[in-house]
Amino acid sequence: MSQLKVLGLCGSLRKHSTNMGLLKYAQAHAPAQIDLTIADLSEVPFYNADLSTPPAAAATLLQQFEAADALLLACPEYNYSLAPALKNALDWASRAPENRLLHHKPVAIMGAAGGMGSSRAQYHLRQVCVFLNLHPLNKPEVFSNAFSNSFDATGQLVDEKVQQLIQQQLAALYDWSVQLGFGRSQA
Amino acid sequence: MSQLKVLGLCGSLRKHSTNMGLLKYAQAHAPAQIDLTIADLSEVPFYNADLSTPPAAAATLLQQFEAADALLLACPEYNYSLAPALKNALDWASRAPENRLLHHKPVAIMGAAGGMGSSRAQYHLRQVCVFLNLHPLNKPEVFSNAFSNSFDATGQLVDEKVQQLIQQQLAALYDWSVQLGFGRSQA
Amino acid sequence: MSQLKVLGLCGSLRKHSTNMGLLKYAQAHAPAQIDLTIADLSEVPFYNADLSTPPAAAATLLQQFEAADALLLACPEYNYSLAPALKNALDWASRAPENRLLHHKPVAIMGAAGGMGSSRAQYHLRQVCVFLNLHPLNKPEVFSNAFSNSFDATGQLVDEKVQQLIQQQLAALYDWSVQLGFGRSQA
Amino acid sequence: MSQLKVLGLCGSLRKHSTNMGLLKYAQAHAPAQIDLTIADLSEVPFYNADLSTPPAAAATLLQQFEAADALLLACPEYNYSLAPALKNALDWASRAPENRLLHHKPVAIMGAAGGMGSSRAQYHLRQVCVFLNLHPLNKPEVFSNAFSNSFDATGQLVDEKVQQLIQQQLAALYDWSVQLGFGRSQA
Repeated sequence: MSQLKVLGLCGSLRKHSTNMGLLKYAQAHAPAQIDLTIADLSEVPFYNADLSTPPAAAATLLQQFEAADALLLACPEYNYSLAPALKNALDWASRAPENRLLHHKPVAIMGAAGGMGSSRAQYHLRQVCVFLNLHPLNKPEVFSNAFSNSFDATGQLVDEKVQQLIQQQLAALYDWSVQLGFGRSQA
Repeated sequence: MSQLKVLGLCGSLRKHSTNMGLLKYAQAHAPAQIDLTIADLSEVPFYNADLSTPPAAAATLLQQFEAADALLLACPEYNYSLAPALKNALDWASRAPENRLLHHKPVAIMGAAGGMGSSRAQYHLRQVCVFLNLHPLNKPEVFSNAFSNSFDATGQLVDEKVQQLIQQQLAALYDWSVQLGFGRSQA
Repeated sequence: MSQLKVLGLCGSLRKHSTNMGLLKYAQAHAPAQIDLTIADLSEVPFYNADLSTPPAAAATLLQQFEAADALLLACPEYNYSLAPALKNALDWASRAPENRLLHHKPVAIMGAAGGMGSSRAQYHLRQVCVFLNLHPLNKPEVFSNAFSNSFDATGQLVDEKVQQLIQQQLAALYDWSVQLGFGRSQA
Repeated sequence: MSQLKVLGLCGSLRKHSTNMGLLKYAQAHAPAQIDLTIADLSEVPFYNADLSTPPAAAATLLQQFEAADALLLACPEYNYSLAPALKNALDWASRAPENRLLHHKPVAIMGAAGGMGSSRAQYHLRQVCVFLNLHPLNKPEVFSNAFSNSFDATGQLVDEKVQQLIQQQLAALYDWSVQLGFGRSQA
């Protein structure tokens, strides 16, 4: 069975981010056939078409996109839409020649936010995926309440239901990746 | 007649940005009762809730938001959604105490992009305005094609129809601001 | 003080509709300065541009739109978007000459649905309002859970918090209508 | 090579609908491995959960959904969102037990409308697909201008570029269906 290389991105840059808490839980509890790397977006600058060469942090990110078979996006909701740091990472990736870093790759989306669990931002993110020719998983959607006691003070996920949901999502992401062709050429 | 103070923000950081071209045209041709200042977003960092004090460029921006009666947003479309630099400026503004920098202010939205003229991004921006309690003008919407000859090589707007549309939008923004109470207390 | 004529529309045609429950609560508890009529959409057919004359139920609806100063929309969520009966009523109204039945009228939106309280449908509805040149109230948004015990078996609203929210929304709709000019010419 | 059974639905009920023109072009020029049936939505009533048995036209539609391997949706844009007749057809299908009529089926979306070619409605439709667990094709998107001379007076598609785009979309729908498993069990 092939190992699926997943790149995780978190839209929040806070130290105790609940969205990073979701990603870290996923990393610690991913099934054996998933290898999850979490990107560091803290030094990636705003995309600017005038920059002929990507700065170092962006260049590293682009290599990580290239190496990934699939993406796991932890999507906060800021003012009913996307967090700029997450959107910006995808914007950088989209500018590589022929969009080859992204297109046709499977994606899973999770998020923590206020009452609606970042759902408003997640549907904007899904529209972005249409242009990027990414294939987001439909279900399960992961919406978690960042202001409940689902997380401890350091942003660690402690809610069992959300933990189970993430495990289900990772399993579904693996199946979806296989359905989209992952592992077929290696067979 | 009171002078309406409008703050213009442009989501693209490129030197020859077509969206900045829209804003500059508006600034040069605004009616006498509008005073349009264009914010400099080039040094505003990503919002991060861990920062207890806004960095200098963000602090300047927040003062400009406070001084403004209305906003004029030049909205590019990156990958079917918002440009991070524009979204980020609004995210910074939303964090001031009680959201008083933004709420109830009138807004006009314009944009230049590929075939759909940034419309996909503009509807995401309108959803952001719901949370921020901003009041976007419904009409006229300004969608311009960044890849046509509406703009010269330096991003300057040269299309007469779009120029007229911007003048109509500025007049409508003034009327909308008056309708929402601007100038009433000064009377 | 002028009396604000509000037309209420409900997207669900079920007898014990929870969305109709929201509207009926609003009708029974509207402040004295609001006169709320609830439209009957049960016989309004699908809009079809080939019909040169609106059928009777549609004609009645169009008269009600014309008489209204403002709208109150009870918005269910079917499959993450709008209920066809509500959208269809607005589509009929939009076809009257020069859109004069709708444009510049204030609108309040409420909804009952599954976990997200119809929020996904409500943002689609807000996009519709842009084209129709309607002015939806930003806040308070009314999201209620149709599958909780907020409603009894006949769809009647029994949740005190949602009841209060509706009263706040009606008061805000009145103020918003005044801000947009309602009552000014009568003064 | 297996024959892909595609069900086509058109959101407009007009006789000379341009959206029906897109579907009819597709039907007449589908590749040999696609068998395209166009549903008749003219007698399908508004979905109402109180109806214990679907009326005849709805029952026929449900059988067609069940028989289909994939969907081809011709999506008009009414007031910046979906046409009720199309949304209503999907709402009926979603109510069948366990959603088995729809889920995991591939979908292609095309549309004719004003300047934006129904794009605003199509993104709402894509959000609907998330809940229904349908898998819409990302590319090519088909946006055609209903008010240009792309169509003749009877709604027939006469624009060569759009014709080619539809042929590309049908080929892509076939490939996408195969990728999602169509024909695999028959092999």
